[in-house]
Amino acid sequence: MLIALLTDFGTRDHYAASMKGVMAGIAPDSRFIDITHEVPPGDIASAAFSLFACFRDLPPGTIILAVVDPGVGSDRRGIAAKAGGKYLVGPDNGIFSYVFDVCSDVEVFSLREVRSANAEISMTFHGRDVFAPAAAKLACGVAIEDLGSPVIDPARLPCIHPKKDDETIYGRVLHVDRFGNVITNVPRKDLGEEFNAEAGGRLINIERSHYAEAGGEIFLISGSLGLVEISRNGASAASELGVGAGDEVVFRPGKRE
Amino acid sequence: MLIALLTDFGTRDHYAASMKGVMAGIAPDSRFIDITHEVPPGDIASAAFSLFACFRDLPPGTIILAVVDPGVGSDRRGIAAKAGGKYLVGPDNGIFSYVFDVCSDVEVFSLREVRSANAEISMTFHGRDVFAPAAAKLACGVAIEDLGSPVIDPARLPCIHPKKDDETIYGRVLHVDRFGNVITNVPRKDLGEEFNAEAGGRLINIERSHYAEAGGEIFLISGSLGLVEISRNGASAASELGVGAGDEVVFRPGKRE
Amino acid sequence: MLIALLTDFGTRDHYAASMKGVMAGIAPDSRFIDITHEVPPGDIASAAFSLFACFRDLPPGTIILAVVDPGVGSDRRGIAAKAGGKYLVGPDNGIFSYVFDVCSDVEVFSLREVRSANAEISMTFHGRDVFAPAAAKLACGVAIEDLGSPVIDPARLPCIHPKKDDETIYGRVLHVDRFGNVITNVPRKDLGEEFNAEAGGRLINIERSHYAEAGGEIFLISGSLGLVEISRNGASAASELGVGAGDEVVFRPGKRE
Repeated sequence: MLIALLTDFGTRDHYAASMKGVMAGIAPDSRFIDITHEVPPGDIASAAFSLFACFRDLPPGTIILAVVDPGVGSDRRGIAAKAGGKYLVGPDNGIFSYVFDVCSDVEVFSLREVRSANAEISMTFHGRDVFAPAAAKLACGVAIEDLGSPVIDPARLPCIHPKKDDETIYGRVLHVDRFGNVITNVPRKDLGEEFNAEAGGRLINIERSHYAEAGGEIFLISGSLGLVEISRNGASAASELGVGAGDEVVFRPGKRE
Repeated sequence: MLIALLTDFGTRDHYAASMKGVMAGIAPDSRFIDITHEVPPGDIASAAFSLFACFRDLPPGTIILAVVDPGVGSDRRGIAAKAGGKYLVGPDNGIFSYVFDVCSDVEVFSLREVRSANAEISMTFHGRDVFAPAAAKLACGVAIEDLGSPVIDPARLPCIHPKKDDETIYGRVLHVDRFGNVITNVPRKDLGEEFNAEAGGRLINIERSHYAEAGGEIFLISGSLGLVEISRNGASAASELGVGAGDEVVFRPGKRE
Repeated sequence: MLIALLTDFGTRDHYAASMKGVMAGIAPDSRFIDITHEVPPGDIASAAFSLFACFRDLPPGTIILAVVDPGVGSDRRGIAAKAGGKYLVGPDNGIFSYVFDVCSDVEVFSLREVRSANAEISMTFHGRDVFAPAAAKLACGVAIEDLGSPVIDPARLPCIHPKKDDETIYGRVLHVDRFGNVITNVPRKDLGEEFNAEAGGRLINIERSHYAEAGGEIFLISGSLGLVEISRNGASAASELGVGAGDEVVFRPGKRE
């Protein structure tokens, strides 16, 4: 079974390997995909975006193990969820929020602690001691209902969808990627043929269909998630605009100068 | 089937995982090796070097998926190629150039767009929407001829091999690795017993057979690709010389002081 | 068979992929886990810690391929070892030292050089040319005794265990992780209910059971390896204290102010 991992553990330390080792011990046929381990430490919204962004690309039945867990050892719950035909395991802190926002069939269970064969449960590394064993149980075919009790109030971040007020859409930056593309939460299809965006105090009213079509200007583009992105060809639009995740981007109809 | 990935997507974002997810959906038995995702953004020559550098180490039948693609969405072609008993899939921008330079059996096909089951083809992420599905089709046993039409003029970078003028060899830096080793395009076997190199305005006339043999000096060494490298033990020869990829290195016979 | 890799090759270059390619060619059913490739160049003690830290989490029979090898090409030996039901392959420079310190059943063999099918043995990349083929042979079921001759004096680093003098324990920093947690070599269970630690000229006498319990103070915590760690919630204790791997941490009983 395919297990996709996302953490804020970085790639210098052994933490991700420990989780994979535990899972391979319980479910020897597991295959692993790393979504990323470079979520900024403790940044739950960044993790939620990355999970949302690759969610539909993962095959049915994929088990997603996500550990960005500043509350580890406290009484925050651990959860396993089923949504969109895939499984999610991790802390109940909002990390699966954006996936839940876009799935209509979410079922959530509060994890009973599942001990791995050779480790006591630490107070600092539930990724290894609680979540990896739970994900591996799912990979072995254990029913999600058998991992814990139903939960109806999982933690949620502010909804991924933007607010609308008449013709104005109040969006926000979900993510800045490696290339400096500013990914907003506004679907391109929710906008008319002509529109403009205000971000970082600047008005952007040029739309391009692909990067190579652009010169040095900052432009709007329908990105690979169907969301409007703000980009520069060969340079970081985010640096140029001085915007980052969470910042507001306001969309209005028309090519206002 | 083994699929080896190389991109400039970095490891912070979800992009590589999206490609793996799409491939695992089409070809569930695929196993993935990451060559690197840290090609400098848009640096096709750097990507071409990394592909060349590990090409012979990959088993026969390996499918190499390489996406460094500044022209995504434009009318640049996508290609699938067969060379040296392995497959290559990616944009037709020269990325496979150095592999083609050293294989005598290159066949190239212009990709018809292959849609993955659950994604429309975006204008910004052909890695996920075009190239990953094509690589996965190969992994499923689809014949390469069935992916597109033969092409005789794939894009090429300047040839990997150095120019010779009498006894002088005009080489260039192909790559600087993590350790600061300066990897040139000049095979050690093309040089006599004694030779010197000029790089970054400095003359290097010391040759070592292994790193630990050296003190603090800059030296020449026959590297793991059979090419001459310029190294320092425990320090970066590239920083010391102020050279980088593309810079000239001139080789002449004799231990000139 | 599961093969876990640890190197100082970084993730920008093709080196790890070359090793995986060679192993996949010899042992096609191999599955790979990356422990890390970001060991600081040549830092054997850092590598030894990371191997120790995930060792017990890897399933029985796992083959660990570790290449931090500043002496490559010199006459330092290559070794294969069996310990704790798992296999280890790499240079004989102390890299497996901490694993050997905590296993009672260590067997070590000096590697005869094993050629991969398509590569001569370079003087600079034994990871690809010697160690990867040896690891792959183990993955194919070759007996470890058949890879070389028994060795009774593998290279060792200073023992992982701390020194005790009456009630004082002279520990040291084994590792600073991504979060700035300072991981010492002193097991929590070797200390009484109340104790204090001296590190970086500072006295630390607060113990917490988990991160979220703490405010901005520096505190002691029993980490995921059962060792005492020095931490700050949401910030780097290592930076604050100015300590790094190898630095002394002295533990004394009592909550001394």
